[in-house]
Amino acid sequence: MDSIQSIMTRRSVRQYTGEGIDEKDLKIILEAAMSGPSTANTRPWSFIVVRDKETLGKMAEANGKAANPLRTADIGILVCGDLSRAFPSAKDYWIIDCSIAAQNMTIAAHSLGLGSVWLGTYPQMDKVENQKKLFNLPEDIIPHSILSFGHPDPHEPSLNRAKFNEDQVHYEKW
Amino acid sequence: MDSIQSIMTRRSVRQYTGEGIDEKDLKIILEAAMSGPSTANTRPWSFIVVRDKETLGKMAEANGKAANPLRTADIGILVCGDLSRAFPSAKDYWIIDCSIAAQNMTIAAHSLGLGSVWLGTYPQMDKVENQKKLFNLPEDIIPHSILSFGHPDPHEPSLNRAKFNEDQVHYEKW
Repeated sequence: MDSIQSIMTRRSVRQYTGEGIDEKDLKIILEAAMSGPSTANTRPWSFIVVRDKETLGKMAEANGKAANPLRTADIGILVCGDLSRAFPSAKDYWIIDCSIAAQNMTIAAHSLGLGSVWLGTYPQMDKVENQKKLFNLPEDIIPHSILSFGHPDPHEPSLNRAKFNEDQVHYEKW
Repeated sequence: MDSIQSIMTRRSVRQYTGEGIDEKDLKIILEAAMSGPSTANTRPWSFIVVRDKETLGKMAEANGKAANPLRTADIGILVCGDLSRAFPSAKDYWIIDCSIAAQNMTIAAHSLGLGSVWLGTYPQMDKVENQKKLFNLPEDIIPHSILSFGHPDPHEPSLNRAKFNEDQVHYEKW
């Protein structure tokens, strides 16, 4: 798919057909994540890839109602920050670096004909703690977001979101 | 350009030829930004587009040495969070939402044959305050990142960054 078209037509997809995702597509999605830039090339991420239905259900449970797409997803990926790799003088850049990696994944998935949706975790610390406990994560590994992936259910209603808004652009000055 | 190829081949470009960027390409880049998802569709961003050389120099000065690419860029965009639009129960999602918008811009620019680089601002609060002061921003508008854009100088040395690292992927469990 053309890159600009992919960015512009990506939508959050929350309903899936149940069809499986190829290993080779998963590999492309993970490569896309790690092709993103990171602060001073620190690459402060870890990814937990889950296909097991029971675990996907637990991830959904731990993240609240908005995470229900995980219950029919083929794959859920918990994107985590790795503070041991974070930029020493401003560690919180990990939040931005993980966002970049995750957004690359959603665009890559859409380009491959797959659907995905961001399921926000950080900075809602109850969700962060729940995921951390579920996966028994080390102290320096911080859950950032979950992405759920699957083949898009063509019957999912379109939300027809707004896009470009000139009022949010300023030229030369505020 | 193919979408997967665009994601995988994007590199931070810090040297530019000085050639101008078309208004229509700028519009595509801004549309790409606002095509990203945001927390509960809050769209908590504002973008300040700067072409004026003197202002670009001041932005570079305010952001420290790593922001020198702005001095030869054709366009700098200050991506800001707009807290008045942020998700009420967890406002700090604005940091993630602005990251998504900015990453969409870098991929779109690369697809258009342009080069860009992220110039980190938030969470380095000295840089945040400097940009805020430079643009005399309202209280609820928070500088997040600057992106500089230009036509890539073909003589810029390639950094040949690492990409996929299997050690940063975990399957089913930590």
